[in-house]
Amino acid sequence: MPDDADPQVMAATLHAELLRRSAMIATAESLTGGALGDLLSAAPGASDTYLGGVVSYATAVKRKLLGVSDATVREHGVVSAECAAEMAAGVRRLLDADVAVSTTGVAGPTEQEGKPVGTVFIGVATDNGVSTTCLDLEGDRPSIRERTCREAISAVLAALVP
Amino acid sequence: MPDDADPQVMAATLHAELLRRSAMIATAESLTGGALGDLLSAAPGASDTYLGGVVSYATAVKRKLLGVSDATVREHGVVSAECAAEMAAGVRRLLDADVAVSTTGVAGPTEQEGKPVGTVFIGVATDNGVSTTCLDLEGDRPSIRERTCREAISAVLAALVP
Repeated sequence: MPDDADPQVMAATLHAELLRRSAMIATAESLTGGALGDLLSAAPGASDTYLGGVVSYATAVKRKLLGVSDATVREHGVVSAECAAEMAAGVRRLLDADVAVSTTGVAGPTEQEGKPVGTVFIGVATDNGVSTTCLDLEGDRPSIRERTCREAISAVLAALVP
Repeated sequence: MPDDADPQVMAATLHAELLRRSAMIATAESLTGGALGDLLSAAPGASDTYLGGVVSYATAVKRKLLGVSDATVREHGVVSAECAAEMAAGVRRLLDADVAVSTTGVAGPTEQEGKPVGTVFIGVATDNGVSTTCLDLEGDRPSIRERTCREAISAVLAALVP
């Protein structure tokens, strides 16, 4: 997908790919706060491929609902590949989904855990395991959140169609 | 709030009201699919009042994570005041939030459970109990989802500032 792809077109592509595989997807969102779920549920028929997910904005929610470990939070922080991986695996297990995708990062305007604005991690969990993507995004808070949603969809498509 | 209030202005008003009370909010979303969480987390400093929530798009997620009862689903359906109330109470308990808000309804384009497009229920749970609002909205799928988000914020504000 090109960098400027329409998020709704990307979501439709993912929906079609999931439908073709009879696969259901779940989301675990931190910095995107629900925007990814919004995108995946925007089109009619979304319930055929989207189960729902967890908006784990607070660290306590990442721990309690998604099972992100204390060791990960302490040693790597919540803005880390380790946290993204545990979030994706956690929501996949929790919702009994075929595929799960997670987002965590620094939307700004200030840094977090010593990590600069634009540092984003995406996790994708399938029955083949968990993969993570690290991004260093430019822009303001809305554009980082929006770009993260597009990158998350790209990451799932890449995992499904290698 | 007027019907055409800017959703981001409404979210900022709610953020300020929650901040003044040192109260944290959680969301349980069905037809809005994450759009309400997106709105509540869009502005910088959102983590001071927004904990996160559950996108319970599938009925199984409403049951398993939010504790919506089998009897409610069977007797009233998921598009009901009873379901909205259990979703709000459920996510408030699950995330240990001060305030919780839920959305469930028919975004369209087709009816659901024999209820017409635009039938929407919003639940608000506080330490004073749970209240529900029933709406009969006009418009297409995107406008029903967007209007539901605004009505949900209004309902929380009404519960906080009677």
